[in-house]
Amino acid sequence: MKKIINKPENFVEEMLDGIVRAYGDRLKLAGEQGRVILRAQGPKKGRVGIVTGGGSGHLPVFLGYVGEGMLDGCAVGNVFASPSSQTMFEMIKACDGGAGVLCLYGNYGGDNLNFDMACEMAEFEDIKTATVRVADDVASSPKVTAEKRRGVAGMVYAFKAAGAAADLGRDLKGVAAAARKALASTRTMGVALSPCIVPQVGKPTFSIKDDEIEIGMGIHGEPGIEVRPMMNADEVASLILSKILADMPLERGDEVSVMVNGLGATPLEELLIVFRAIHKELEAKGVFVAMPHVGEFATSMEMAGLSVTILKLDAELKSLLRAPASTPFYTNANI
Amino acid sequence: MKKIINKPENFVEEMLDGIVRAYGDRLKLAGEQGRVILRAQGPKKGRVGIVTGGGSGHLPVFLGYVGEGMLDGCAVGNVFASPSSQTMFEMIKACDGGAGVLCLYGNYGGDNLNFDMACEMAEFEDIKTATVRVADDVASSPKVTAEKRRGVAGMVYAFKAAGAAADLGRDLKGVAAAARKALASTRTMGVALSPCIVPQVGKPTFSIKDDEIEIGMGIHGEPGIEVRPMMNADEVASLILSKILADMPLERGDEVSVMVNGLGATPLEELLIVFRAIHKELEAKGVFVAMPHVGEFATSMEMAGLSVTILKLDAELKSLLRAPASTPFYTNANI
Repeated sequence: MKKIINKPENFVEEMLDGIVRAYGDRLKLAGEQGRVILRAQGPKKGRVGIVTGGGSGHLPVFLGYVGEGMLDGCAVGNVFASPSSQTMFEMIKACDGGAGVLCLYGNYGGDNLNFDMACEMAEFEDIKTATVRVADDVASSPKVTAEKRRGVAGMVYAFKAAGAAADLGRDLKGVAAAARKALASTRTMGVALSPCIVPQVGKPTFSIKDDEIEIGMGIHGEPGIEVRPMMNADEVASLILSKILADMPLERGDEVSVMVNGLGATPLEELLIVFRAIHKELEAKGVFVAMPHVGEFATSMEMAGLSVTILKLDAELKSLLRAPASTPFYTNANI
Repeated sequence: MKKIINKPENFVEEMLDGIVRAYGDRLKLAGEQGRVILRAQGPKKGRVGIVTGGGSGHLPVFLGYVGEGMLDGCAVGNVFASPSSQTMFEMIKACDGGAGVLCLYGNYGGDNLNFDMACEMAEFEDIKTATVRVADDVASSPKVTAEKRRGVAGMVYAFKAAGAAADLGRDLKGVAAAARKALASTRTMGVALSPCIVPQVGKPTFSIKDDEIEIGMGIHGEPGIEVRPMMNADEVASLILSKILADMPLERGDEVSVMVNGLGATPLEELLIVFRAIHKELEAKGVFVAMPHVGEFATSMEMAGLSVTILKLDAELKSLLRAPASTPFYTNANI
């Protein structure tokens, strides 16, 4: 295992300490276990709070999006493991400014169970909550059972839309509706070239041959839909786009935002070459591409590979995406 | 070679096409060979132009910093190879708004030679130029021959300082002075864990054993100062900091900006763990850390490893760093 870390069992705590040492003017640690990240300024009175949570190992997801215009709090689990319901409850409580709290998180068994329990605990204390689960990965379940899909990089669009809606003063129902609307128009699919190593395990969680690529692999190494001989960038882009468009058709004149997300070890140059291929194909279909997102938004530590997310835009979603935001790893400014 | 690319010989052109497809509202391609990146809006009349250039394979360096508040143009070479003097000349000409052009680039033989020729060509056409070479890598030459050092991630601070000085309306001499001042207070050192692959070569440029780490390696795989058995994050941070502080001592009460830069494949979690260690050591010395930069700023494609840059701040440098900037891969906003 070649990682620049200290003791594997301290990986998450030291990462969190690093975050707070770097961004202590904007973020703070809280919670009995020190596993809650909050905006340093605390909840905004009368504004809906937006929280998320999940396992570590996916930075900037999840906690890198806590900040102005996006999330108010994040519950942090061990690598690839759900945070506890107690941690989530402490976070929900800390993020309530009196208008209720939206829990917006990836659709994984442990997170679902623990967030449901945390919301029940919050309701006991008269904190209103709403839940929106991100399930954007088209490779993880067919369309007829789309509610079983995993949540991956598309969640960043939902964080942004919900954050902007809350900043506009919408109520809990309205903020949840903005997140649901963004997600209804969001589809993602990824490919992986190499595995990653969970620090406390110390060896790769799976293997991919040197001349193969796994299509549709999940961000925790969940099996994809097939393993193929290595493909070039244009072929990867075409395959992903065909799967996404089969699920969410686009028409001439439609406008989309495209996110090409690196899983960890894939260079920005390669992400841009894939963005080019996606853009060319959409252009040929008469689909207009706006608001590019090219970089690392949701990773699996040192995994090589990428995902493509398509968000179909309308005037409302464009306006929500364009609203200013400033977090340690997502800044959107019209200057 | 496991890369998501098309034909290796098209790597740079397709990457550039991807950049312009993504950010065409802000950037444009120019030059006879299509190897000049410019701000889409063209030069600002009366403002000093700031340009850079160098080989490809280091994104976001160099062209990712072309935009508001930083660079006006970038000349783009093949992977790890200098752009031609002709390309540089076309760029300088395109970036002159009448107040002259600062050439601000990394100290490498080919780039030095070609930029010198390009500046001569520009002077023939009555375009004033000034040159500042970035030489921040303390591992690449001893202090007595500091002018031989290579330019690495610290150049981002110089781009930012010069861009802000130009935005303040300073003249060519003043903008060059701002860049020189930032660089006089900037030191960088890196470590590498794995090699990278130049697409047209198709195999790693060097090798590092599975249980070893190379100290002071350059971003093109230039040999470092020593190879050691694998170290943990705290040891890496201590070693780098000791080399930097031997070169640029810091005193109790000093204030610095710290950049922990991933070389390509190293996860953000690990960068934060190293940031933590650097921050702890500086804190113990009574040095205050502001303006964190944690992420990928200057890479070597899929190389694993990281560099640490320390910029010693004063009131002027803080103000220049804090000024707004908006480029595809560097956004600095006070919102």
